[in-house]
Amino acid sequence: MSRAGRVALLAGGVGAARLLRGLAALVRPTDLTVVVNTADDDVFHGLHVSPDVDTILYTLAGLSDPGRGWGIRDDSFRAIEALARYRGDTWFRLGDRDLATHLFRTEELRAGRLLSEVTADQARALGVKVRVLPMSDGRVRTIIETAQGRLSFQEYLVRERAKPVVKSIRYEGIRTAEPAPGVLAAIEQADIVVIAPSNPFVSIAPILGLTGVRAAVRRTSAPVVAVSPLIGGRPVKGPADRMMRALGMKPSPLPLAELYKDLLDGLVIDRADRSHVPALEGRGLRVTTTNTLMNTPVRSTAVAREVLSLADAARTPLAS
Amino acid sequence: MSRAGRVALLAGGVGAARLLRGLAALVRPTDLTVVVNTADDDVFHGLHVSPDVDTILYTLAGLSDPGRGWGIRDDSFRAIEALARYRGDTWFRLGDRDLATHLFRTEELRAGRLLSEVTADQARALGVKVRVLPMSDGRVRTIIETAQGRLSFQEYLVRERAKPVVKSIRYEGIRTAEPAPGVLAAIEQADIVVIAPSNPFVSIAPILGLTGVRAAVRRTSAPVVAVSPLIGGRPVKGPADRMMRALGMKPSPLPLAELYKDLLDGLVIDRADRSHVPALEGRGLRVTTTNTLMNTPVRSTAVAREVLSLADAARTPLAS
Repeated sequence: MSRAGRVALLAGGVGAARLLRGLAALVRPTDLTVVVNTADDDVFHGLHVSPDVDTILYTLAGLSDPGRGWGIRDDSFRAIEALARYRGDTWFRLGDRDLATHLFRTEELRAGRLLSEVTADQARALGVKVRVLPMSDGRVRTIIETAQGRLSFQEYLVRERAKPVVKSIRYEGIRTAEPAPGVLAAIEQADIVVIAPSNPFVSIAPILGLTGVRAAVRRTSAPVVAVSPLIGGRPVKGPADRMMRALGMKPSPLPLAELYKDLLDGLVIDRADRSHVPALEGRGLRVTTTNTLMNTPVRSTAVAREVLSLADAARTPLAS
Repeated sequence: MSRAGRVALLAGGVGAARLLRGLAALVRPTDLTVVVNTADDDVFHGLHVSPDVDTILYTLAGLSDPGRGWGIRDDSFRAIEALARYRGDTWFRLGDRDLATHLFRTEELRAGRLLSEVTADQARALGVKVRVLPMSDGRVRTIIETAQGRLSFQEYLVRERAKPVVKSIRYEGIRTAEPAPGVLAAIEQADIVVIAPSNPFVSIAPILGLTGVRAAVRRTSAPVVAVSPLIGGRPVKGPADRMMRALGMKPSPLPLAELYKDLLDGLVIDRADRSHVPALEGRGLRVTTTNTLMNTPVRSTAVAREVLSLADAARTPLAS
């Protein structure tokens, strides 16, 4: 175990989960708090699905499907296939074991419990010791305005396979939803704040957009380090590059540094993007280049180690 | 196809479903209306489960499990097993394919649709041509007062395996719930009314207890024929005999005839109960004895044929 101290991770789905499994190998689980995006939560077949929370929980519990990045390994799809007899709109595929997570969550929420409470129960039931906090108990929803109209994030990503041209992105409810209990404290008390290699628009922006969160990350004296989700200008998974282009940015670590410019001390980028190091350093950032593809637990730990080292280095001021 | 005309069947679960599959082999499906008990509906894991409606639909669709009498043949239980990680109370086992039925029903009901509408959709989706009417779109719930306290019917039957001593049975909501659209008309327009070999207390009584139903069955000029659920004083399935005893009756076709005395023209009983024929005939009933165990489709058709013959015979008055 490193003496990294307390780590707070701002997280989306699969990229975050893979970094997290590396951090969990290096940091005491009880020192690790992950604040998870819930702006792409949605209701399918009457069930409250929290895709990013589930990906985080399943990864930490060792249940995740290594290939897909969602759902439970070796799951079957008998319920959803049977549901197709009754209705056509079964494009959001939920596995049979995965369904249990949504059934439990939905029933507990209906009984008046908070998403953060239910998530804590689920983490405990799955043997997850890292503290997993949904970003908010309130309702925030990412809305993608596209050339084909207004879509929820899952409609855009899963149903339409991220093909519609993005015109703008907004976060319904972001002004009224509050950070979940513990979110601001976790950031304020962290010895390192890490921004996961997640989509900056649909995973990280909703977290930072909650009242007080961005300010807390800006204000902390702890080093703030991000890992770029791009490898050679393309994300491992998801539409981050298309979104960057649609919003007038050239996909690279540079727009990322711009989006997080008031927050970051350091940035871990892939070797494939090393040509951008001078420009990033020119903005006053410490930069580490490494192989950021975390397709095995060993690779996750290696990247996590780079994150912790960079944070350590950032504690001493850059020579100017 | 027989010229039985229109048949209305008052039905509980598996016994009714087995008679129904026989009737459906003899009567045009469009001439057949089944009015199904919903007083043992319940909510499990946030899902609205209608056990008797499901048993009827699955049997007519050829999906039912021949051994169990509930659920779908060859179903798996991965969701419910995964749910056990989150909570202990998974005593009501729902199969993965079966879950789809409850997910669809629950979501449609939450959207404001009526149980009778949703059931019609489900029957259509499953290729069921018989008209399946839940007895009511309102909420009626069988409450079993036992020596161990107040139980819902599923708690009594499934969780407690029908072991607690029954003190009384009541039907919450029965005074305010109305028969579903088409129920009274189906009885009034039927050429034969059949009371299925279902538990008289928890399956048939709630149907008859709805405003206007018992009166409609009493008033019809069509023959009314019941099939006894007992074989040698014991039901094929379920606690009918224990309930009879608990309520001070000796399990036999006689208390059944008493419970339905204002309604029946004829009664089909098992050969094992033939010693009761004189007493039943003494009450003015036409009685057929046969093998009532409908463990194969052929046996279902044979019993259904006896029902139709008895109804035919009942059209001519008994010599006195």
